[in-house]
Amino acid sequence: MAGNADLDGVFNPKSVAISGISTNRAYDGIAETYLRALIESEFNGPIYPINPKGGEIRGVKIYPNVKDVPDSLDYVICCIPAASVPQLVKDCAAKGVKAVQFFTSGFSENGTEEGRRLEAEICDIARQGGIRLIGPNCMGVYCPKAGLSFAPDYPTESGPVAFICQSGGNAIYFTRYAAQRGVRFSKVVSFGNAADVDESDLLEYLTNDTETKIIAAYIEGLKDGRRFSKAVRRAAAAKPVIMMKGGCTEAGARAVASHTGALAGSARIWDGLLRQAGVIPVATLEELADILVTLLYLPVPHGRRLGAIDAGGGAAVVATDAYVSAGLDLPPLPQELRQKLRSFLSTDAGLSVNNPVDLAGQFYNTSAAYSVVKTLADYGGVDILVFHLPLGINPPFPSFPKEFAIVILDNAIRVHNETDKPMVVVIDQITTVESWETAIACQQKCQQAGIPVYFSVSSAAKAIGRFLSYHEKRTKLAD
Amino acid sequence: MAGNADLDGVFNPKSVAISGISTNRAYDGIAETYLRALIESEFNGPIYPINPKGGEIRGVKIYPNVKDVPDSLDYVICCIPAASVPQLVKDCAAKGVKAVQFFTSGFSENGTEEGRRLEAEICDIARQGGIRLIGPNCMGVYCPKAGLSFAPDYPTESGPVAFICQSGGNAIYFTRYAAQRGVRFSKVVSFGNAADVDESDLLEYLTNDTETKIIAAYIEGLKDGRRFSKAVRRAAAAKPVIMMKGGCTEAGARAVASHTGALAGSARIWDGLLRQAGVIPVATLEELADILVTLLYLPVPHGRRLGAIDAGGGAAVVATDAYVSAGLDLPPLPQELRQKLRSFLSTDAGLSVNNPVDLAGQFYNTSAAYSVVKTLADYGGVDILVFHLPLGINPPFPSFPKEFAIVILDNAIRVHNETDKPMVVVIDQITTVESWETAIACQQKCQQAGIPVYFSVSSAAKAIGRFLSYHEKRTKLAD
Repeated sequence: MAGNADLDGVFNPKSVAISGISTNRAYDGIAETYLRALIESEFNGPIYPINPKGGEIRGVKIYPNVKDVPDSLDYVICCIPAASVPQLVKDCAAKGVKAVQFFTSGFSENGTEEGRRLEAEICDIARQGGIRLIGPNCMGVYCPKAGLSFAPDYPTESGPVAFICQSGGNAIYFTRYAAQRGVRFSKVVSFGNAADVDESDLLEYLTNDTETKIIAAYIEGLKDGRRFSKAVRRAAAAKPVIMMKGGCTEAGARAVASHTGALAGSARIWDGLLRQAGVIPVATLEELADILVTLLYLPVPHGRRLGAIDAGGGAAVVATDAYVSAGLDLPPLPQELRQKLRSFLSTDAGLSVNNPVDLAGQFYNTSAAYSVVKTLADYGGVDILVFHLPLGINPPFPSFPKEFAIVILDNAIRVHNETDKPMVVVIDQITTVESWETAIACQQKCQQAGIPVYFSVSSAAKAIGRFLSYHEKRTKLAD
Repeated sequence: MAGNADLDGVFNPKSVAISGISTNRAYDGIAETYLRALIESEFNGPIYPINPKGGEIRGVKIYPNVKDVPDSLDYVICCIPAASVPQLVKDCAAKGVKAVQFFTSGFSENGTEEGRRLEAEICDIARQGGIRLIGPNCMGVYCPKAGLSFAPDYPTESGPVAFICQSGGNAIYFTRYAAQRGVRFSKVVSFGNAADVDESDLLEYLTNDTETKIIAAYIEGLKDGRRFSKAVRRAAAAKPVIMMKGGCTEAGARAVASHTGALAGSARIWDGLLRQAGVIPVATLEELADILVTLLYLPVPHGRRLGAIDAGGGAAVVATDAYVSAGLDLPPLPQELRQKLRSFLSTDAGLSVNNPVDLAGQFYNTSAAYSVVKTLADYGGVDILVFHLPLGINPPFPSFPKEFAIVILDNAIRVHNETDKPMVVVIDQITTVESWETAIACQQKCQQAGIPVYFSVSSAAKAIGRFLSYHEKRTKLAD
């Protein structure tokens, strides 16, 4: 349906109106939240709050109707009740608006004849007026470059990841969660019922979008399976595509039907489609963040051989099982290398110097720890270093001290800066609120240094395994 | 080997000495940490720090040797280097000590002839002196009733769970993590190389221990497979037994060998043994905490039919897939019940009132939320209520406000107190440090009310599924 030119109005508006603004709520409602989000995202153009009563909000004049906006108007965010929506779309058409996004729900997803009729009606009006619709029943667009957003705390900086999401709630959570994990976005689109702009339109647009290097998607159901199949194959041929399918069980499909009115389709057909297209499948939103972090921060390694640095025998055993279960290799180290590694460490510590190398208490001995990590990085027999920092192993501290953790990570970061060996960091065994504070501070430090961080060995293992399989498959195809 | 009387000296000492105390370290070393742990755990008897130089620490007199202790001495915690250990054990024998636990490593686990010889030597001395040994290469015993502990911040209150753990690091982390999740312990034993007291001794003791209602274990390898097999069958016939096997991959087994010197054995044999014995198997320590929370707080439901209350369509879809994938049922609700539930909710919210019931924004409408939860609890067609509070779904707040979350949970707790329907709470979509603070505050509130809490839908689903399978199997056996 839509070429790229067609959706440019969605991602590059010069002016935005918000319909449904109220000045007398105790807490910000959704319309006021959109206003705050646009202000915080530094939207680079006029913002027009709309309410029939007029007035002012946050120092911005409120207009009674979109038609009263003095200049041209590109984009409208609609937060008014469903019954009033047809008139709003008519007014938008009269005003020459290019795109409208609808937070408003109460359309086809509620399963009533009236809901379906209303949704068809606004589509008709929009088509005649040359307006593209996002939603209804969605959060709309977060596009940092354009200053569009649906949450006031999202990063203002752009990045290479696009995320399309049929669920508004999952879009809100995932964007925030992934941002905290170090992911930056070109575009996020929560598109709800997909009455007009749908998953295939978005995939086609993003395939050609030079600002998007990676496409992530949460899909509940499809409008047109054949078109989607074609769009997803093209997208995955052009750039990495990762997808999570909501409603992959019978009861899940029922929940989908009443959520976005979509037909969930069979899990088996879906799996086959993704595999053939070369899409990376994930089962949870947290797994989606893990694989994005990996794609963004981990250079493609030469193979699946891990060199693991650990702290504590039990943590090393658990980590090893997780890595190997995910299809990664931990080759035993040659005797000569083991002797060299052991030479850096105090001899009475009872450490295992194999693979993993268990640093145990000598994590704190920074020069020894540095030498171990550097030596393992220089060894050609491993392709990726995994530096594991379990925060729970110390008896004296209910919460592992942040300053200790930072010092320990400095060695990993120093080696990362000095060598080309791909490296990941795992921070786990997180118990208290204070240890989460430590974990997140450590993660941000690693992220700034360009090292991907995971919060469990199993999530690290799964993400690295998927990443390697993706690249191995592509290499095979290219041969 | 050991009857219950035999290990009573391990769990009920009247006096404790700590060998290897130092007064001139910048930070507490391990011996000083044990001292702090005993003081904080309110050990109800004399504590004797030991160091050849004498002196005083934390206002307690230091004795040069265990033989210099003025009164009788039951228990010794050993933190001195391996080479000095034989003399210490000789001194303990002379003093009439009943049990010694060894933090000290550098014995059979280091794979040298000398390490094995030294371990055999201390076992010989101990046997001749009538002393039981815990370890070497372990953290030893946490027994709140006796005031024994290896970390200063562990709860002083006892509980019904025993945990035996071949890894010291995993024992430290898991005890703290599980305690925070609401688990209280009768005994935790980190037993390392198991030179004397081993997994079978402990299982036999705990099978007969009236203070232990549930046995959890992290096992890396066995001293005597046949004896263990018998011990675990007897234990599992008497009370719920949950086990995690460390070293279930080839590389993991190699890590085990250099960690505790144990033979890991084949994963298939292990799985078969546990299944036949009726043990609940888990793959991670976090899963172990999930199943303990379930066993402790969830009454046995009549069946696997969940009634799910959710917030937001996307979160409901993801939750439903997780529940059903774990083998739980979410039956569609009868039309009459759906109409009743819908009558409590505002009609323009576009909510799905099926199973899950999506409360969305009406979570805040406390009387509506209460009526929905109460009505679902009263419905005979579901066996367990799952109340899901995703903290990430709100756009206005980077972190979901704690006071809102508490108010929302009050409805669940009120219904829990008014009905007999088993209930669980899932708190997820946790992003920032502040949202962890909210999550943990909510968890503690639920825990006080006797409701189990999980931090992801998939971990809740897995734990409930395992819990139901365990009870179904037992019911079948009883028939």
